[in-house]
Formats: sequence, C-alpha cells, structure tokens
Amino acid sequence: MGRVTQRVPSVRLRVGGEVGREGGKAGAGENRGDEQRAVTEVARPDTVAVEEPLQVRVLGQPLTVTMRTPGDDFDLAIGHLLTEGFISAPDEVLGLMHCVDADESGSPTYNVVDVTAREDVAPALTARAYAASQRASSPTSACGLCGSRSIEDVLGRPIPARDTGTVEPVQLDPETLVDLPDRLRAHQSTFDRTGGTHAAGLFTPAGEVLVVREDVGRHNAVDKVIGAAARSGHWPLDDLVLVVSARAGFEIVAKAVAARVPVVVAVSAPTSLAVALAEEAGTTLVAFTRSPRATVYAHPERVRTPTRARPDPARTLL
Amino acid sequence: MGRVTQRVPSVRLRVGGEVGREGGKAGAGENRGDEQRAVTEVARPDTVAVEEPLQVRVLGQPLTVTMRTPGDDFDLAIGHLLTEGFISAPDEVLGLMHCVDADESGSPTYNVVDVTAREDVAPALTARAYAASQRASSPTSACGLCGSRSIEDVLGRPIPARDTGTVEPVQLDPETLVDLPDRLRAHQSTFDRTGGTHAAGLFTPAGEVLVVREDVGRHNAVDKVIGAAARSGHWPLDDLVLVVSARAGFEIVAKAVAARVPVVVAVSAPTSLAVALAEEAGTTLVAFTRSPRATVYAHPERVRTPTRARPDPARTLL
Repeated sequence: MGRVTQRVPSVRLRVGGEVGREGGKAGAGENRGDEQRAVTEVARPDTVAVEEPLQVRVLGQPLTVTMRTPGDDFDLAIGHLLTEGFISAPDEVLGLMHCVDADESGSPTYNVVDVTAREDVAPALTARAYAASQRASSPTSACGLCGSRSIEDVLGRPIPARDTGTVEPVQLDPETLVDLPDRLRAHQSTFDRTGGTHAAGLFTPAGEVLVVREDVGRHNAVDKVIGAAARSGHWPLDDLVLVVSARAGFEIVAKAVAARVPVVVAVSAPTSLAVALAEEAGTTLVAFTRSPRATVYAHPERVRTPTRARPDPARTLL
Repeated sequence: MGRVTQRVPSVRLRVGGEVGREGGKAGAGENRGDEQRAVTEVARPDTVAVEEPLQVRVLGQPLTVTMRTPGDDFDLAIGHLLTEGFISAPDEVLGLMHCVDADESGSPTYNVVDVTAREDVAPALTARAYAASQRASSPTSACGLCGSRSIEDVLGRPIPARDTGTVEPVQLDPETLVDLPDRLRAHQSTFDRTGGTHAAGLFTPAGEVLVVREDVGRHNAVDKVIGAAARSGHWPLDDLVLVVSARAGFEIVAKAVAARVPVVVAVSAPTSLAVALAEEAGTTLVAFTRSPRATVYAHPERVRTPTRARPDPARTLL
C-alpha cells in the first residue's frame, strides 16, 4: 500500500528570529530598507502529504485519473463512480482489484484500480464511461456550453429527485451544526503531520461521526467518505450530513446531491454555482462554519433556528 | 462579460451571541449538554464568488472545460495552452474569440473561447489536442500508470530543460521572500468580498508585483497570471517568481515548470510529488511562507540565506 506521508529534506528560514527580533508581523512594504534583519536557517527533514496518480478502470476501460493521497483507493473508486453518476447503487459493482505491476525497484505501485460490474449493468456502464471520455472533446454542431446555462447542463445529467417521505426528515440543532468542523478537525491526523490535506466526514444529524477521510484533493476526500459509507451498506446517504474542511464549490455539492446527502457543511466559502445547485436540488448548504458562527446559503429549513424551532412539515425536505 | 461576484440570500447564525455569550471558542464535545444556548439569526444577502464553466476550443476542437470565475478568459486560455504543453510560445496563437451565443434571457454567456493558431503550428496543435482527449480514456495494452513512476510519466511530457546562462540568475533575499504572500494579499480584492477565491501573482525577485489574478480554482489563477504575462510579451518567465495563496500541489509546480518560472512560493503546504518535480526540474519551491517564516523544499540556492549569502556560480541554476 502506498504511503500517506513522506519525509523530504527542507530548509526552514526565519527573518528577524531570536537575534534582532523586533516583535510584530512585518506587513507588505515594511522591509524595503537597506538594513537587513538577522536570518536564521535550519536544515531538517519535514513530513509532506503524498500525492500520486490513481487510474480507475471500469471493465478494462480507463475512466479517470485523479491525483490522490494513497489509501482507501477502493472507497475512492466506488465513491467516484457513485458521485459522478456512473453507477446508481454500490451493488452494481461486483469487484475491485488493485493492479499490482511493480515499479523499477520491484515494489507494487497500487496506482490502478480495476472495477468489475454486475452483468446486467455492465453494458450501460461501459456506454456511460465511453460517453464521459468523449464529452469534453467531441465537436458538436451547436455551440455546446454557449446558451446552456441550466444547472443540469453544467452537471451533465439530471438532478436526482428527492424521495421525500421515506426516512426521517433531517433536522440539526445550531449548537451541533457550528461544532461539526471542530469534530471533523479532531480526526485529521494526516493534516496534523503535514498541513497539506483536506478532510471530509459523514456525521449523523446529532453530530456523531461515522467516517472521516483525508486527501490532498478535497473532491477525493468526499468520494472516499461516500464510497466508504456505500461499501458498508449505507446507501443512499439521505440521513447524513457531509462536512468538508474546505470551500464548497460546485463539484462538492454535486457529489453530495448524487449521494442524496441532504446537508453539506463547509468550513470556508461557497461559490455561486454551488449555492444555485443546492437551492435547485433541495440540499441544505452551510458555509463559513466556524464555532460559534455559520451561514446557511440554501434550504435553512433543516436547521432548528429560533424562527424554525418547530419545523413546518410542508417546508421540510428530506 | 460575466460577473466576478454575485449576491445571494443567506441566513447568518450565531450560537451564544450577545445573549448568554460565555466568551471563548467552543471546542469539540463541549456543547452536548441539554442546556441550549441562545441562537441569533439574521437573514441578509451575502456576496459569493461566481463559478461558471469555460470551454476552450482550439481550431474548432473542444479541448477542455474548467470551472472558473469569469474575467480574464483570454489570459486563462493562453495560460492553459502554455502550461499544459499544447503550445510552446504565445505567438503560436493568432487569435482569441469569445463565442457570444445568448442564454435564454438573451444575454451573451461568454463561456466558450475559440483559439485560432498560426498556420505552421496548427496541425501539431490539433494532434496534441486530440491526443490529450484520448489519453485518459484510451485502453492501452500495457498497464498504463502501473510501473510508470517517473515524474515525466505523470506529467505526460518531458520536463523542459533549463536554458542556463541566458538571463541573470534569480536570487531572493529572505526578507523579500517571506513578505511575498502579504504583498499578494494586498491585491486580493475579490477575496476581500467573498472569502472564496484563490490568488496567484507574478513578482520580480526584488518583490515588485507584475500581475495578480483571482479565481475559484487555484490552477485557473495560475494560468491567468502566466497567460497575462505571456500576452504582454513576457515569455518565458525565467526571471520571475510565482506566488500562490494556496497549497503547492503537483499541478501548480507543473504549470510553473512549463512557463520556466524558476521560483514558486506558496502560502500553504507542498505535496510529495510537487517537491519531487521541483527538485527534478531545477525549480525553487518555498512553502508555508508566512512572515517572518518560510520553508524551502527544493533548490534553496536561489535564496540568499546566511550560508548562501555569496552564491556559488556552479550551484546557481536559472
């Protein structure tokens, strides 16, 4: 199995350290004088997050290459297939296999995952994989993206309908909501060592953690937690909350929508298209979530705020 | 022209606000008691960064779709072609044109850029665009990434040789180096309004800013500054420093290498593959750059540290 972190040589610099330290942070433009401040320099190994390519193959057809942190590759592969719309349920996959070709040193690289699919879905999956490979590159007679401003056009597939009424409506207390990033943070052990990975976690509406994964790519971390839940038999994820250590871009919300996750909580900012997709898909989108604050950008009816302490069933989406 | 920011409705929450505020940040697990703290709730419009797809077409062939913040699309298109190895100099492009098809409201979308190329390079460019569209998806008889661990295999093209000796060797004072992120930050006006964009900037080794661009995608921000410099006649960028507000992943260093930028300075962490590529390509990689500190992960010989105050010409790369 590939390593998650790696030691590399590094040189740490500090300007105005113990010697000549004046106190206070130097702002832009303050240090242009001829007077040089003391510079301290320490050569020492540092720990960085590993980034390596993973190719996912479906029925022998290369589908995608992603730059990821090794580990949980099967979760990543299944999660990617689910969140990008290639399969609609985890049981459509029959098997996952690491290709174990060796590198020049004789060690297996584990950088390819082969996916085999159930016989009845294999032809459709092959067709979808082929269509995806052609979508970005096929010349069309129409102008393509020009004139196509609907969210579904950008998504490349229909927004899945919410299956209202089959499970308990998800409701979050604000106290729980604003603490979710701190609860995620407590599980970010790779970040502790490298400062270089994002994290995603699936939580119950009561704030209990189910699974956390870290990766150099935030989309990979999301695929990994969704794949991990799905592989354990939890599907769809219509009773869970997705928490991400990063911003909420379109891609992150699109993955949540595909997995039927009703609430997305991000530590940092949302984008315009993420808000638009969440609004249209019926997904609650919370961003800038830093205790004791949070901002809800779409479907606040799942948060028990003072004005919504008693949820109105007619406004409650799943 | 598409908007850079957009106003969206939002609901701001604060747990334990003016009423019942105990002071201090609530840590994980501290708020699980039955006692509920006061929650304040304010509905107000918020400003978010716009994220929209841009398709780049080369000679009529769709090459790539990227989710970007509108604006500087021509810089982005040229920068992308240069940093992904589709063209080797900006003058290979003859023209750039926004496709102006209208959306349903009659407004132009400006979400497609058509690139026309010089006649002598057009056939090779078409071939490269076609090969790129096939690379991720074409079945190969060999195992592909398995067994291919060299940096050039991941990059998909040779690492360009450094043309040593033609321009002044780049040397940075540590005092200037640690201040670069603050100097970049002073130009991040979209971030000030949205908290949702990354920035990239090109600086002289003396710390003077040449160009700054912001985008929801950090790779787009890098393509935009490189494209802007190239379009203004500055090519290659072998006398400049690239500063990014984010982490230094493989993709960011790969773009710098393609543009011959000798020094990359990141505010946050590097990845293993970014360090390996920088080392192999002769690029100085500095990360965790936060005044008064910085860590150099590759080719420290371009930084005038105490032990390198007098650069040894034999060790000085361009």
